[in-house]
Amino acid sequence: MTGHQQTLTPFLWRAENVFPEKEIVARTHEGMKRYTYDEYGDRVRKLANALENAGVEEGDRIGTICWNTDRHFETYFSVPNIGAQLHTINPLLPDGHIQHIVSDAQNKVIFVDPSLAEKLDSAYEEDSFSSVEQFVVMGSEVPDLSIEPVTDYESFIGDESTDYEFPELSEDQPAGMCYTSGTTGMPKGVEYTQQMLWSHTMATMVPQALGIDDSDVLMPVVPMFHVNAWGMPFSATAAGAKQVYPGPSPDPEDIARLIEEEEVTLTAGVPTVWLGLLEYMEDNEVDLSSLERVIIGGSAAPKALIEQFDELGVEVVHAWGMTEMSPIGTVANLKSDLEDAPKEQQFNVKAKQGLIVPGLEFKVVDDDGNEVPWNGEDFGELYVRGPWVTQSYFERPEANEEDFEGSWLKTGDIVTVDEDGYIEIVDRAGDVIKSGGEWISSQELENAIMAHDDVTEAAVIGVPHERWSERPVAMVVTPDEVDNDALTEELKEMLLEEYPKWWLPDGFKYIDEIPKTATGKFSKKDLREMYEGQEDEL
Amino acid sequence: MTGHQQTLTPFLWRAENVFPEKEIVARTHEGMKRYTYDEYGDRVRKLANALENAGVEEGDRIGTICWNTDRHFETYFSVPNIGAQLHTINPLLPDGHIQHIVSDAQNKVIFVDPSLAEKLDSAYEEDSFSSVEQFVVMGSEVPDLSIEPVTDYESFIGDESTDYEFPELSEDQPAGMCYTSGTTGMPKGVEYTQQMLWSHTMATMVPQALGIDDSDVLMPVVPMFHVNAWGMPFSATAAGAKQVYPGPSPDPEDIARLIEEEEVTLTAGVPTVWLGLLEYMEDNEVDLSSLERVIIGGSAAPKALIEQFDELGVEVVHAWGMTEMSPIGTVANLKSDLEDAPKEQQFNVKAKQGLIVPGLEFKVVDDDGNEVPWNGEDFGELYVRGPWVTQSYFERPEANEEDFEGSWLKTGDIVTVDEDGYIEIVDRAGDVIKSGGEWISSQELENAIMAHDDVTEAAVIGVPHERWSERPVAMVVTPDEVDNDALTEELKEMLLEEYPKWWLPDGFKYIDEIPKTATGKFSKKDLREMYEGQEDEL
Ligand SMILES: Nc1ncnc2c1ncn2[C@@H]1O[C@H](COP(=O)(O)OP(=O)(O)OP(=O)(O)O)[C@@H](O)[C@H]1O
Ligand SMILES: Nc1ncnc2c1ncn2[C@@H]1O[C@H](COP(=O)(O)OP(=O)(O)OP(=O)(O)O)[C@@H](O)[C@H]1O
Ligand SMILES: [Mg+2]
Ligand SMILES: [Mg+2]
Repeated sequence: MTGHQQTLTPFLWRAENVFPEKEIVARTHEGMKRYTYDEYGDRVRKLANALENAGVEEGDRIGTICWNTDRHFETYFSVPNIGAQLHTINPLLPDGHIQHIVSDAQNKVIFVDPSLAEKLDSAYEEDSFSSVEQFVVMGSEVPDLSIEPVTDYESFIGDESTDYEFPELSEDQPAGMCYTSGTTGMPKGVEYTQQMLWSHTMATMVPQALGIDDSDVLMPVVPMFHVNAWGMPFSATAAGAKQVYPGPSPDPEDIARLIEEEEVTLTAGVPTVWLGLLEYMEDNEVDLSSLERVIIGGSAAPKALIEQFDELGVEVVHAWGMTEMSPIGTVANLKSDLEDAPKEQQFNVKAKQGLIVPGLEFKVVDDDGNEVPWNGEDFGELYVRGPWVTQSYFERPEANEEDFEGSWLKTGDIVTVDEDGYIEIVDRAGDVIKSGGEWISSQELENAIMAHDDVTEAAVIGVPHERWSERPVAMVVTPDEVDNDALTEELKEMLLEEYPKWWLPDGFKYIDEIPKTATGKFSKKDLREMYEGQEDEL
Repeated sequence: MTGHQQTLTPFLWRAENVFPEKEIVARTHEGMKRYTYDEYGDRVRKLANALENAGVEEGDRIGTICWNTDRHFETYFSVPNIGAQLHTINPLLPDGHIQHIVSDAQNKVIFVDPSLAEKLDSAYEEDSFSSVEQFVVMGSEVPDLSIEPVTDYESFIGDESTDYEFPELSEDQPAGMCYTSGTTGMPKGVEYTQQMLWSHTMATMVPQALGIDDSDVLMPVVPMFHVNAWGMPFSATAAGAKQVYPGPSPDPEDIARLIEEEEVTLTAGVPTVWLGLLEYMEDNEVDLSSLERVIIGGSAAPKALIEQFDELGVEVVHAWGMTEMSPIGTVANLKSDLEDAPKEQQFNVKAKQGLIVPGLEFKVVDDDGNEVPWNGEDFGELYVRGPWVTQSYFERPEANEEDFEGSWLKTGDIVTVDEDGYIEIVDRAGDVIKSGGEWISSQELENAIMAHDDVTEAAVIGVPHERWSERPVAMVVTPDEVDNDALTEELKEMLLEEYPKWWLPDGFKYIDEIPKTATGKFSKKDLREMYEGQEDEL
């Protein structure tokens, strides 16, 4: 009685056949590349044959250490469609993490961008990489490297046939894999089944998620090693949309030029990328007229960013997600009754992490295990579940014990939910500061401090305190010329306008840089480690 | 590693909690009813308790013989959410068919509209209905009937609690059931698993299907006993959209009034309904300004209808589906490169059955089992597969042998596919006329003949012929005053402008009415039976 298995193959088939002329464009180390879904499909099948000839079988894990390019995108359908598992690896991770991840995932083949080959070479270490039978450099030549056996992509797929009959896979077949960012500890492996990727792809297309259509020109700036560029390559293919890949380390100029030249309508990335673009636009003329929407996630989208884009006629779509969720969980779309609300109110809503996407469920649980009311004030940990939310980690029994409760994933994010159902992240569970039995939101304090013109970045951590058990301390980065003592007074005054006195950080420490994770998030773990034992100085 | 099961409960949960104030409005025999998702959820859980107390268990089949009302909609979530199976029954079927269906499906409880209770009474027959333990009339009183035991809906759910913890179901749990229309033979049972309904719901929301959002006000005119009103009640709930149910036998005036008063933006039904509305509008002022789109399916949407709606500022969304497909398979949305095409070209595209919905696959196979090229000319039978397409019939092993090939459903529809991927249905497999080894499309001839102002309806069937093996004959319905012989000459001339001579029907027979099925489709089976042995006269 049941229907056919939920797999990725129909998305490729549809794009190739119904939208054969739609383009895939990429900025690569060889210059701009441009081809159609029609040709894309042929290259996907060539690669499938090459993988099979290289001995890849159903269930094998294939690693990629690559930027957002056409060739990387080819692995996105080739690998899962033959029943293997696409494991995207973050090249910005420390060598030790990469070694851990590769040896954990037992990758059989690893694809690597020429610009990242040196990084791989440096991370390479025989034991951790012992499972790897073939390295493939994403180009038409092989740079001088110590890793082996190594070949280049074009030679790898060169003679292969464009015919390949993809097997009818089970929807439970693992199709993808990605490690969490390691913000709170060692990265944890998350596997994606065909069904999870299928569900996420369908869900992202619905209007209350991202509403992707064939009229969109989609450019994922978020790296393809961050949870499959938030699933965009799959969604765009399913919708038959034109795709633009910004290639190795795109800078604001590259991004601006691609938006202009390819008439991008929809793009996606972390806040830093967009702050960079807007800064670049202060001195450079950029035509954003084609751009309709920017999806921002990974960290909170600052309200100022939402407002600035609005002035440029671009809608910010703020989304929240996790590696564990394939990744999209909430999107801050306006409910229909907010469509005519004053802009200010709309910005406030859009600065929240948003409404749960159709198909998922959540609950917010306080320390005693009770669900908190939806009043925009009460905090609790966010639990989620749904078809594209994992129910376990890869070979991490302890984490499976801790981070799941039945079918629920405990996100580790502390949130409020308002009367309209909009979720707002106020902290990470480990970052919450508990002072005299009351919670203080480190993220709220950070956002408030960063709103000051003389503050470049700020992070707030909790330090042990005899009487209050914990007290907040702010770490602040400023431009060179600022008078720190004066600034501290200004910040205190500013905070007192909005927050009770006991929320005021006990100390303001001026530092050169906030330590960051490989995905560019504030690493409070590192901050706390840096200052362990020096609490008195803070 | 996998995600949570795909079931309907999260859709209800989300509507109730994220869109608690959105309305459900119904025209009922008790007058207009109006409540919110918040109240709706409570009544769904009351009904769940009532069903449980009535002895309903996981896997039981619950029948409904009901119009589109609030109470019928309550069964849509109550029954599947407790693990039982919602079996909607077409009250317009002949008594014998209803008996067959009820005894085939072994319904434990049957819900019936007051206005349909007499129909049920007449179809009632002890043997076929022996599984039924409870009849429930959709109201607050019980009419005088011979069926028993019988109660009324409000008494049935009256004292029940609004608390009910829905079980965590498997996505393979059967959740729905519907019989095919019986156009080509006895109706066949199709079961829908939770996963099929979940997939169909997600798919219908995507822009390239129906693009349903919370800003929509959705009125399914297509009856809820026709493949769950094409799944709209589920899609609208998942999107948190306002819903309007037009109640028992709505006439054009009811439909017009509901669109005006409830500011309906999106509605759906078979062509006849809309022809009726437009006819009504010739003599009556109707304000369609809220209406954005009309989904038309079940039979081909005539081009003239698409044009007339366009003049009224309403977009026709032509869709094709089957009971076997939950039901939606293709939607004639314009590709982005057609958005600026001349209207005439757009209408031609919209009159086709459309593009395959993301997530599904199809192929078109000729008599020799080869796939036909996508050139808009070559015919073949349409095969489809996907997560919301069944892979077997309920207890019909012979049909399972005939109508499926591996994971593919053979639709029985004969189609062309054009270069852009738009599918056009040219015939039913059994209705195709093969003359001198060449195919003639009965549906094309019918549409051409019906385009004449003096023709009310026309059907074309094939009759045996010694030399050509088969030849077309047209059955034509006209208004009283028409001169048939003159009309025949005009029709022949008209057809010759577009079609080769050998496509011309050998005979034009003027009859009072084309026999129809319970879903209002031309019953060529009946036509052929009517004229069997009288071929010489045709
Ligand atoms: N829009 C957003 N606003 C605020 N925080 C966000 C947003 N999107 C994502 N996040 C944060 O990112 C987290 C998910 O990130 P990711 O899966 O990349 O790994 P991580 O949680 O940073 O690392 P690890 O789980 O290894 O500690 C979320 O749990 C949330 O804390
Ligand atoms: N937009 C449309 N244009 C033309 N035909 C359509 C359209 N939508 C549906 N149909 C026809 O309706 C059929 C599906 O109808 P349904 O499932 O209600 O039962 P049926 O096929 O009429 O009856 P049975 O299968 O019992 O003979 C399709 O196979 C197709 O022939
Ligand atoms: Mg995490
Ligand atoms: Mg049929």
